[in-house]
Amino acid sequence: MNSDVKAIEFYFDLSSPYGYIGAQGIESVASRHGREVNWLPILLGPILKQTGHRPLAQVPLMGEYSLHDIERCCRRLKIDFVLPDPFPIPTVTAARACYWLQQQNPEAAKQLALALYHAYFAENHNISRTPVVLEICRQQGLDEEALEAALTGQELKDRLRQATADAMAKGVFGSPFFIVDGEPFWGADRLRDLDRWLETGGW
Amino acid sequence: MNSDVKAIEFYFDLSSPYGYIGAQGIESVASRHGREVNWLPILLGPILKQTGHRPLAQVPLMGEYSLHDIERCCRRLKIDFVLPDPFPIPTVTAARACYWLQQQNPEAAKQLALALYHAYFAENHNISRTPVVLEICRQQGLDEEALEAALTGQELKDRLRQATADAMAKGVFGSPFFIVDGEPFWGADRLRDLDRWLETGGW
Repeated sequence: MNSDVKAIEFYFDLSSPYGYIGAQGIESVASRHGREVNWLPILLGPILKQTGHRPLAQVPLMGEYSLHDIERCCRRLKIDFVLPDPFPIPTVTAARACYWLQQQNPEAAKQLALALYHAYFAENHNISRTPVVLEICRQQGLDEEALEAALTGQELKDRLRQATADAMAKGVFGSPFFIVDGEPFWGADRLRDLDRWLETGGW
Repeated sequence: MNSDVKAIEFYFDLSSPYGYIGAQGIESVASRHGREVNWLPILLGPILKQTGHRPLAQVPLMGEYSLHDIERCCRRLKIDFVLPDPFPIPTVTAARACYWLQQQNPEAAKQLALALYHAYFAENHNISRTPVVLEICRQQGLDEEALEAALTGQELKDRLRQATADAMAKGVFGSPFFIVDGEPFWGADRLRDLDRWLETGGW
């Protein structure tokens, strides 16, 4: 990896199905072009509150289409998917767990994000619940007691709040959202364009 | 063309930039698979009113991103584009003109839709104004006086209202929107999936 080359910023909410799809593909696109990826879980709730947008699932017609489209995308990409119940959920604890691990081991934090996504969207485990998040961490070989203690601290709360605010300041309004050298790409289906953008140097 | 094979339904608002982009590509995708395309101008206004969604341009952050994305898509596809002013506009008259011509000559009606799109998104002509629509029709070699008379009649008003209502009844909530054998695809960027869908017979 060339350390002069900036990492791709990958913003996602752990309750976002398109974020789940984007998470399966971003590393392979990035590595084709010698790029690192900075995984940044955010909370869409506060962002949608500011933009006045509603979660996809709550918009008539669009909500039904989106579910159909998500299932179709997952079939095409051979990604396991079951619509979880409840959906959507608050992902505060899950996202904080990712930041807790990121400070120690960024690579392991990516694996944890993928494990949380899989638990929710492929196994229908409610990752808004702290015991569920802790159990997934345990399965990943992590120190769940240390995490449990950290989750109650101010530092992780501030970290996630700041990450969400920073994302909004950069124009992030949805999930997944990728930024490559300042160039924004919104949506899992934009990974193809992002790939081409890196290949051609932009257009 | 195989007359047993259903036409692709192509729904679009003439004030929709992504509809403009979709209109440049749909015929070549369809013809690759021996399909006809049924061009169906609709009014997004009444649809957004029902779904409670707002036009892209009015959503904070998303509006700015969308403009950037539209310009980027047009550069990639080598489509002329300037953000028109005013934008968006009501396209009642322009859409009625398309239905007027469709009754006589569906192929010419497609060319008219493309000419209207080009006038608005490449030349910044305000196609919400009746004289502008009439002038474009004149340039297409059409009988502008006959159109002017028809535009005041109830038949065209009903035709467009019905087209928009039929679209909503089929789940259409945005522009462009394509339906292939009952399968819905929303967005200009979904043309690639639509192409693949026709090639593989679905997945």
